[in-house]
Amino acid sequence: MSRPRPATIRDVAALAGVSVGTASKALNGRGSLRAETVARVRQAAGQLDFRANEAARSLHADRTYTVGMITTDTIGRFSIPLLIGAEDILGAGQVSVLLCDARDDPIRERHHLQVLLSRRVDGIIVTGRRAGTRAPIGAGLPVPVVYAFLASADPADCSIVPDEAAGIRIAAEHLRSTGRSRLVHVTGPEHHHSARVRAEALTGLVAAPLFGEWSEAWGRRAAGLLLARGGDFDGVICGNDQIARGVAETLREAGRDVPRDVAVTGFDNWDVIAEASRPPLTSVDMDLEGLGRSAAGLLLDAIAGNPAPGPHRHPTRLIIRDSSVL
Amino acid sequence: MSRPRPATIRDVAALAGVSVGTASKALNGRGSLRAETVARVRQAAGQLDFRANEAARSLHADRTYTVGMITTDTIGRFSIPLLIGAEDILGAGQVSVLLCDARDDPIRERHHLQVLLSRRVDGIIVTGRRAGTRAPIGAGLPVPVVYAFLASADPADCSIVPDEAAGIRIAAEHLRSTGRSRLVHVTGPEHHHSARVRAEALTGLVAAPLFGEWSEAWGRRAAGLLLARGGDFDGVICGNDQIARGVAETLREAGRDVPRDVAVTGFDNWDVIAEASRPPLTSVDMDLEGLGRSAAGLLLDAIAGNPAPGPHRHPTRLIIRDSSVL
Repeated sequence: MSRPRPATIRDVAALAGVSVGTASKALNGRGSLRAETVARVRQAAGQLDFRANEAARSLHADRTYTVGMITTDTIGRFSIPLLIGAEDILGAGQVSVLLCDARDDPIRERHHLQVLLSRRVDGIIVTGRRAGTRAPIGAGLPVPVVYAFLASADPADCSIVPDEAAGIRIAAEHLRSTGRSRLVHVTGPEHHHSARVRAEALTGLVAAPLFGEWSEAWGRRAAGLLLARGGDFDGVICGNDQIARGVAETLREAGRDVPRDVAVTGFDNWDVIAEASRPPLTSVDMDLEGLGRSAAGLLLDAIAGNPAPGPHRHPTRLIIRDSSVL
Repeated sequence: MSRPRPATIRDVAALAGVSVGTASKALNGRGSLRAETVARVRQAAGQLDFRANEAARSLHADRTYTVGMITTDTIGRFSIPLLIGAEDILGAGQVSVLLCDARDDPIRERHHLQVLLSRRVDGIIVTGRRAGTRAPIGAGLPVPVVYAFLASADPADCSIVPDEAAGIRIAAEHLRSTGRSRLVHVTGPEHHHSARVRAEALTGLVAAPLFGEWSEAWGRRAAGLLLARGGDFDGVICGNDQIARGVAETLREAGRDVPRDVAVTGFDNWDVIAEASRPPLTSVDMDLEGLGRSAAGLLLDAIAGNPAPGPHRHPTRLIIRDSSVL
């Protein structure tokens, strides 16, 4: 006798037309939601016969309601929003997060993995501060693993990463649609995954990229180089906000008005940099908190017996500020 | 029969003349230390009959080797180094960290506390992104609690906070010792604990402080105000690095050379801001990673039966860059 697959919180969210986070909050009576939203989610849950933790509990009496989160390298700026998003979804499902920081040390990482397994966690999220691909954390592990922000080299593993290529192309399209036609690209080191992926995504849209480092100082030097070459450009797509800030400052000090003469875009939407820049920066936002929520949703689904193997891409969005539009 | 109190890792560290973190690494054979240091720590441990986890294990057979870390408000920039430091010491003692993010929501916080207690954690670290005082997280809790970065309102609780007053005075002394005599103070909102504590610490050393916000934009406006007043100042002590960067930029654009005409200092030693500033900023570093290590050490001691109640201050240090010395 074949049973239909039990409904997951993702099914409920889809039917109610809300995010997984919202569905989770509504079902757990947490956070501040409109009564109408809560009602819609509960109706969807009823319709799908979704029984959340109760179902999971009865199916998996040995669950510990604990998941491990291993950061490959040191916890950093990119890990925080991700961690916040994941904790939001997991906490709503009464699941606690055990945090482990492997600091680029394979021995530490193996140690952490063993500790997590000995504590019988229900699943593991692997993350890190650098995007790109990493070796699987282990083979034949007894619990589901989701790779977030970075991807597992094994395409059968469940990974969710920001769609960096689409993100940088949205920035380029934005500049073209506002009348810029001579675009240049200033970005981080050529060996860095994100710099390479973004530069490749712009092939045909911009001249050869200028690779350097992820700093304001490089942005200032790069702008100086571009000006020295004759300065025939009206848009600079930068690999991150720090570079964009350095570029915008140097252009301003050289008498080029941003955005009138040259439009500038950043990447990361890091508020302290993007908003303090003069003018404030248009920037690509990777929605890392949303990515963390999705990663946690994928892990909870896998724990409940509904894995979604393979690579997943989380969409980015463009935040438009004064550096690109008059 | 009175027994001497068993030696703690702090006693071992003190005898060996190293930090608690180094002592922990040496005893657990982790990290990269000089052989001589490891030998010195092990000798001290032998001399004090220190038996680390074995001792604790036999005394507390019901330990779970798990501690909870509750952040009052959302995990932020100040929480990361603290978390890294705490995880360093706890991980070395085979203790796992359960992370909970209360997001300024008392209901979430109570929920997290109950979850942690039901999971039988050995102890709890309470932290947050804003310094200052908070109500105790609970009364009569069955496990030790250490407040880190922020302090409990109950002076009998164990709290460890950065010595902000001493930190800002070190910055003032540095400017005076390098010949500056007309100092001003530009800082964050008057209602903010850190702004108030630091301004009070400078009473008598500087003119009335300029309170505003923790942003570069405020730094720029404040410098404009100071220049409009006649500009009779040769040193600006700022409440954070963002303010300092705004001040330094505006002075430079107004033709005042930093540091020749006016020296500028920041606070936080936030590298992305301090190093990208022109010139790079001299800044007070609260050593939050060290504070996190100390908090974890205090908690492990308390779990082992050696509590250190009351408020503790963690020292700050001044990082000197080009904004204050010629």
